[in-house]
Amino acid sequence: MNTYFNTLVREMEHLRHDLYQKDFLLTWEKSLDELKMVLLVAEALKAMRDKNLSVRCFDSGLAISQFRDNSTRTRFSFASAANLLGLTVQDLDEGKSQIAHGETVRETSAMISFLSDVIGIRDDMFLGAGNAYMREVGAALDEAFHDGVLPQRPGIINLQCDIDHPTQSMADLLHLKSVFGNLESLRGKKIAMTWAYSPSYGKPLSVPQGIIGLMNRLGMKVDLAYPEGYGLIPEVMEQASEQARESGGEFRIVNSMEEAFTDADIVYPKSWAPYHVMQQRTLLLRENDPAGLKELEKQCLANNACFKNWECTEEKMKLTRKGEALYMHCLPADISGVSCKEGEVAKTVFDRYRVPLYKQAGFKPYIIASMMLTNRYPDPAAVLRNLEHRGRNRLL
Amino acid sequence: MNTYFNTLVREMEHLRHDLYQKDFLLTWEKSLDELKMVLLVAEALKAMRDKNLSVRCFDSGLAISQFRDNSTRTRFSFASAANLLGLTVQDLDEGKSQIAHGETVRETSAMISFLSDVIGIRDDMFLGAGNAYMREVGAALDEAFHDGVLPQRPGIINLQCDIDHPTQSMADLLHLKSVFGNLESLRGKKIAMTWAYSPSYGKPLSVPQGIIGLMNRLGMKVDLAYPEGYGLIPEVMEQASEQARESGGEFRIVNSMEEAFTDADIVYPKSWAPYHVMQQRTLLLRENDPAGLKELEKQCLANNACFKNWECTEEKMKLTRKGEALYMHCLPADISGVSCKEGEVAKTVFDRYRVPLYKQAGFKPYIIASMMLTNRYPDPAAVLRNLEHRGRNRLL
Amino acid sequence: MNTYFNTLVREMEHLRHDLYQKDFLLTWEKSLDELKMVLLVAEALKAMRDKNLSVRCFDSGLAISQFRDNSTRTRFSFASAANLLGLTVQDLDEGKSQIAHGETVRETSAMISFLSDVIGIRDDMFLGAGNAYMREVGAALDEAFHDGVLPQRPGIINLQCDIDHPTQSMADLLHLKSVFGNLESLRGKKIAMTWAYSPSYGKPLSVPQGIIGLMNRLGMKVDLAYPEGYGLIPEVMEQASEQARESGGEFRIVNSMEEAFTDADIVYPKSWAPYHVMQQRTLLLRENDPAGLKELEKQCLANNACFKNWECTEEKMKLTRKGEALYMHCLPADISGVSCKEGEVAKTVFDRYRVPLYKQAGFKPYIIASMMLTNRYPDPAAVLRNLEHRGRNRLL
Repeated sequence: MNTYFNTLVREMEHLRHDLYQKDFLLTWEKSLDELKMVLLVAEALKAMRDKNLSVRCFDSGLAISQFRDNSTRTRFSFASAANLLGLTVQDLDEGKSQIAHGETVRETSAMISFLSDVIGIRDDMFLGAGNAYMREVGAALDEAFHDGVLPQRPGIINLQCDIDHPTQSMADLLHLKSVFGNLESLRGKKIAMTWAYSPSYGKPLSVPQGIIGLMNRLGMKVDLAYPEGYGLIPEVMEQASEQARESGGEFRIVNSMEEAFTDADIVYPKSWAPYHVMQQRTLLLRENDPAGLKELEKQCLANNACFKNWECTEEKMKLTRKGEALYMHCLPADISGVSCKEGEVAKTVFDRYRVPLYKQAGFKPYIIASMMLTNRYPDPAAVLRNLEHRGRNRLL
Repeated sequence: MNTYFNTLVREMEHLRHDLYQKDFLLTWEKSLDELKMVLLVAEALKAMRDKNLSVRCFDSGLAISQFRDNSTRTRFSFASAANLLGLTVQDLDEGKSQIAHGETVRETSAMISFLSDVIGIRDDMFLGAGNAYMREVGAALDEAFHDGVLPQRPGIINLQCDIDHPTQSMADLLHLKSVFGNLESLRGKKIAMTWAYSPSYGKPLSVPQGIIGLMNRLGMKVDLAYPEGYGLIPEVMEQASEQARESGGEFRIVNSMEEAFTDADIVYPKSWAPYHVMQQRTLLLRENDPAGLKELEKQCLANNACFKNWECTEEKMKLTRKGEALYMHCLPADISGVSCKEGEVAKTVFDRYRVPLYKQAGFKPYIIASMMLTNRYPDPAAVLRNLEHRGRNRLL
Repeated sequence: MNTYFNTLVREMEHLRHDLYQKDFLLTWEKSLDELKMVLLVAEALKAMRDKNLSVRCFDSGLAISQFRDNSTRTRFSFASAANLLGLTVQDLDEGKSQIAHGETVRETSAMISFLSDVIGIRDDMFLGAGNAYMREVGAALDEAFHDGVLPQRPGIINLQCDIDHPTQSMADLLHLKSVFGNLESLRGKKIAMTWAYSPSYGKPLSVPQGIIGLMNRLGMKVDLAYPEGYGLIPEVMEQASEQARESGGEFRIVNSMEEAFTDADIVYPKSWAPYHVMQQRTLLLRENDPAGLKELEKQCLANNACFKNWECTEEKMKLTRKGEALYMHCLPADISGVSCKEGEVAKTVFDRYRVPLYKQAGFKPYIIASMMLTNRYPDPAAVLRNLEHRGRNRLL
């Protein structure tokens, strides 16, 4: 390969990490070195593939995917990551929105894992349920492995839950690393993670929570902005505050998009449902109360409509540092006049940032592949050196 | 590898078999040597994978799966087996419960097989239809291969039909071999294959039929127990009797769970629908008579309810040899107080046997992989020696 | 390998082509040399696989399939082709009949393509929409590649659109090459592409259009026959006429099945809906007018019924050259007395040609694999020589 690749691998060799055979459920459960490792491995895999070098490091193996919610891009990212490393995706499709508990989770977790290496789970419908479900699967796998039922303990990758969306936030961070040159440059930079108006309802909290839970770690100044009443899970916001103190960054909550945008280096305007609405919604979903859900949706949409001015416009962009902040979104965005009448972002702003936005999305397959690789191999740097030494082309 | 592996392969080399390019539809169509071969290859594949040795012996190739009924664990077992050997699964999804005949079967069988190596079929909804359908597909493939339409004749693996469930019963046998040390130890051991109460209805006959059709071959004493009126397909029971005579085993039909459990070394309590009910049900399904089906279900559930005492309890387990019989089930079981109010097995019994039960299930992917390998390679022992000699790791 | 293989590859080396990184959307956009190249590569891949030589030339990679219409055989052909070369299929399933436009197509096209090598699209529901959609995807991919969003520009393969069905017509041509010995022998041969009666309605125009748009190129005499009012897209018919002039072939439109069959070397009787009906149908589908669609279907079926004598019978077959014309169909056919009361072809005719018909279908996976390979590799002949030199077996 080349100097760039060697730099990445050498950097890995200086990191302390305990990623091997540990699930990736929340970024804040990982050390900074571990997060850096995941980024570096992702970059190395991308660099190698870009040079037509095969990084296939599984001769066979299954990557189970369990999407308890619709998804196209995460599904493709997961499939791309698995394929890149040589794993085959097998979907576990239980029917939508079903909440399995206890015995069923315990048994099913073992049954799908006899020859499986990783399990990717997306479960973001119910507040208090998604991440808990992943841990329940994890405990079942631990037990089955301990009892000799499983020859290996598959690693779990959180593909989005009610609390965090680590494959998204880590891809976002890799995008920032790529745009700003390195992680060190992010120190002191200001990112505005702000609510934005959307004509739809019930959007999950995991993206904003993932962003405020991660970007503080790098010493960034994080402004979380939302209209009054649109708060996130309180514990996550408190913890973001804590993290900012530790890293020397900042964490502020403001109730004005303009304030958050002012002098921001990066803006991330994106709609979500208020925490207390998500709580009610979970209750109504559990009670299977369609009338109540309808009523809640009506109220929530009416409330949203009070904040149509929370739109990322050209005017607001001018408030940012030199008017040149990087605009980010996890996609798809609600673009005013395109995907909806009034939405999260003005058409001209979106259009201007289309290329970086798509590049941002393009990091996700590599982040997931990196999470897979670091989960299955104790020494990722050695694996990458081996793959480079092997020198097998992806295309003949 | 090691001594264990070498022992397995040497044992294979002493067996006479004609598994190559022959469908695996019913265990009783296979010689005892052939059944032993399937077990040995499964064990060797498992031993190699457990040592991180890749057993990938297809560089490309398709394994078609056709599930004419819902299935999670058989689907995962089939996918795991295919992946282990290097085959890619392609689902043939015709929509549920559709019974295609004649021209359509003939044509579709050819169309899906141009580049296919194996076809796994699960079709257990209709008595008299599932196994017949597999043979119809087989005849179509024979014809297409003979006519030069297909460059190879894909092998068919019965993933459960109305008559037998060979991947289950062979996995069960491999479990017994593993628990009791070897096949010879099974001679004279008593297995109680007994009906058990379940609040659901229409459970297929293939598991009990598969067990009584196989375990006799090893010289075991098989007690088939069910409440009066809950008989299996008469021909299968007669044949089990015949097999017992040939092998020096025993086959008895009793109408008491207690009698079957007495001095049993192994118990397999599991619900099924009576043969005559399945006949009626097939008729009603064919006639598309939902009212009739509803009525039949009602009657059948009412009748089931007369036999709630057919539960595998701690008391009944005490009747078994030293009170220590091995409890088996194909899973998922109806556990009293867990998955239903009253069911096939008491919670404490199930819990005590959870680990062996899960291990039992874990043999199925290897049994299926073995059926695939022995179908496509004339000399499985040579293939395994080649794979060992190649020494390629599954994980780098 | 052997002489046959070497002949194929040497022939490739004399062809000029620009297939590399060019979408395959319409056969008439490709030069004759390019079409020959696709046939030769398909033949070479088949020859190698038939000798158990692995032609796997991707160590990893995704082949995206997007079926906006039901399909079993094209789905299996695509999966077989991808697997043969080492690509993994990932389905993009947007829900049926949805017409995505503009932003969505642009964004989704990029999102599914980060690690993808080819995209196969089937979209034949709407006249004026299918091929246009493929070009829209292509433009989005061009843009994303140009902007550095994608590390490669995946190739698009038309798996059937409103205008052409190139994987079908090319497989048909390979079948003719195989039956008549070589392409040169096709010069001057007469093929009757004729409408035939079917009790169903709304069958696409892409097969007859694909045939008249391709067979003329080889200097064949093409008779297109249909009852008055059952014409194809006018531009496609005009162009077929043009092509005939250029190649020294012939193109005639007649309104009698008998006339087309007379002295024909090949007959291809197949039902389709009239162009103007497809136009109306598209309008009604777009307007979401189920009543209008029902009425149109009624009218169309009534009109069809006037032409029940457009059946490929033994009597009509006697009109062909020596009564021995090759009967072709893309399958499944409407066989009189088998799949319907009165249909496209008499049972005895179909039965007599079953083997060649199935062989005809068997070329499709290789044609698709060839389109994939020629799209991803600038020098297919070199790749094939490499694969032969590598000498890796498909089965160990």
